[in-house]
Amino acid sequence: MKEKSTSFDIAYRAGVSQSTVSRALRNSPLVNAATRSKIQAIAKELNYKVDKNASNLRSQQSDTIALLLFEDPTNDDSAINPFFLSMLGSITRACASKGYDLLVSFQQASEDWHADFEDSNKADGLILLGYGDYVDYEEKLVKLLDQGTHFVRWGAEVKHLPIISVGCDNFTGGKQITEHIIKLGRKSFAFLGSASSHAPEFFERYKGHCQALKAHQLTVNPALQFNAMYTEESGYQAACRLINSGESFDAICAACDLIAVGAMRALQEHGFKIPEQVSVVGFDDIAIASFTFPPLTTVKQDTKLAGELLVNTLLSLIHGEKASTTLIPPELVMRKSCAS
Amino acid sequence: MKEKSTSFDIAYRAGVSQSTVSRALRNSPLVNAATRSKIQAIAKELNYKVDKNASNLRSQQSDTIALLLFEDPTNDDSAINPFFLSMLGSITRACASKGYDLLVSFQQASEDWHADFEDSNKADGLILLGYGDYVDYEEKLVKLLDQGTHFVRWGAEVKHLPIISVGCDNFTGGKQITEHIIKLGRKSFAFLGSASSHAPEFFERYKGHCQALKAHQLTVNPALQFNAMYTEESGYQAACRLINSGESFDAICAACDLIAVGAMRALQEHGFKIPEQVSVVGFDDIAIASFTFPPLTTVKQDTKLAGELLVNTLLSLIHGEKASTTLIPPELVMRKSCAS
Repeated sequence: MKEKSTSFDIAYRAGVSQSTVSRALRNSPLVNAATRSKIQAIAKELNYKVDKNASNLRSQQSDTIALLLFEDPTNDDSAINPFFLSMLGSITRACASKGYDLLVSFQQASEDWHADFEDSNKADGLILLGYGDYVDYEEKLVKLLDQGTHFVRWGAEVKHLPIISVGCDNFTGGKQITEHIIKLGRKSFAFLGSASSHAPEFFERYKGHCQALKAHQLTVNPALQFNAMYTEESGYQAACRLINSGESFDAICAACDLIAVGAMRALQEHGFKIPEQVSVVGFDDIAIASFTFPPLTTVKQDTKLAGELLVNTLLSLIHGEKASTTLIPPELVMRKSCAS
Repeated sequence: MKEKSTSFDIAYRAGVSQSTVSRALRNSPLVNAATRSKIQAIAKELNYKVDKNASNLRSQQSDTIALLLFEDPTNDDSAINPFFLSMLGSITRACASKGYDLLVSFQQASEDWHADFEDSNKADGLILLGYGDYVDYEEKLVKLLDQGTHFVRWGAEVKHLPIISVGCDNFTGGKQITEHIIKLGRKSFAFLGSASSHAPEFFERYKGHCQALKAHQLTVNPALQFNAMYTEESGYQAACRLINSGESFDAICAACDLIAVGAMRALQEHGFKIPEQVSVVGFDDIAIASFTFPPLTTVKQDTKLAGELLVNTLLSLIHGEKASTTLIPPELVMRKSCAS
């Protein structure tokens, strides 16, 4: 009996790599049409059958997970935001504990990373993490789905597509921390942070914030919402605009800790006492939050748990098991920036 | 004329992968002797010549650098030390700016990572970073040299081997910061941190510290040196032992910032005023150092520069260019923990 043909035989006859053969046989658009036809014809001629188990095995053999970190295109600073740095650390740890290496790759959301990844064959699956407007790269996520790439996103749930996400329940976090300050008797709330679908995490926190105010018959004053992004400087500038606006306020909810740190600096420079005159809260619980003066009350996003969930969810997808979107419950961390 | 044979032909005839062929033809010990002989015989029969340029090209084609992070075997905590986390971020950034991906892999210094790496063919070169007793893994560095692996270490200079390192000038840093406190009039110095060749970076800082004391005719009192490793808790415990020892002191030099942060907590719990009664200094300038109370005077290790130097030095080695060991100059960062 004739020996069974292998993808190696096809590769040899077609003069291409084995991974190109395997891609062509599952009709990947990453192999050009002429090459695909040629490979499929050779496979037919050799009476080649794809061994599903072997094929699964091949796609699992890199023992590597790729982390695509999307740049903030508006920020030239070469430092990585401490929240994402902490996520990078926890994902690295979680991969190590599962015996996987982590391939870290910086990307612009606008580039062709979806094809690059599939083509490189460097990893068994993808974790997507970082800044960027979801709307801007939804099209690429659809291509990842079409390619059959295993991937999981850090961020808000995507309801209209079968995309698996791990994220924080930002709405509940924003609501809880606002309610905490309401109970301390504050009445006039400023929110420092962008409140639009271009920064969906901040927007959810803002919506939760507004919901808490309404539930307690407090006014949502749009004049007290000031845009700010992920940096201390941005928080400092937003707080200066708030102070100079002449609006009165006795509480500041910052969309993230760095914004809160910048806002505290601006308040103290202008002679405001924290927390006696103004309560300040953040979101994230980055390492410096417990060292600010006063220490910052905030909402903890558990980055250790987040890293483990991202890796475990992705491994489930890679192994053909069921997986679903998870929202991590936010956790109120009370320190001294709200009340003495 | 007959077409020239390729490594692909040899791989096909030998029933092995192309990378095994290429390894066998450069006599790598990672291919077993029988397979090596078989491959070399086939190559001879096919009159195969290694194309040096193509071979170089192949070994450079992953466009990936591997970062081996060595675990602290004495520390079960799953958090990454903030200094190494910052290095991880800056190396990631530096790779991205050169168009390289970064493969991050946690390792125990005791494991066979030198062979695993060569075998995996995943990266063009290695950066070694982390904890661990240099003496314990010197033998593996020698094997990396023998294999011809391109690599660069973060750490102290290795004088007796042709190993390229990038590190901080820890001796000068320890000397400078001690001199700074001496000039403020302090007389009795405690040092919190291990002072042995098992923690070579700390040991260099300690030697610089002692050198400064001697140069100013101050006593080096071995009873005022207390072991501590890389954690806040370790610093807290060491400071408690110092306080309970009954020795008098008016300055503490900590071997790293986390130790200093723990020591400040112990001092404040015991009613010491910083800096009025005791000056405290650290080493590293991690992000929280500017947020402690009082803000911590320390020695900055420029992690951004360090990441760039590690990546650029490794790329020079990969491209066959000249490279040498670099010591980054330490930088004194004066805040309020030494004098009011």
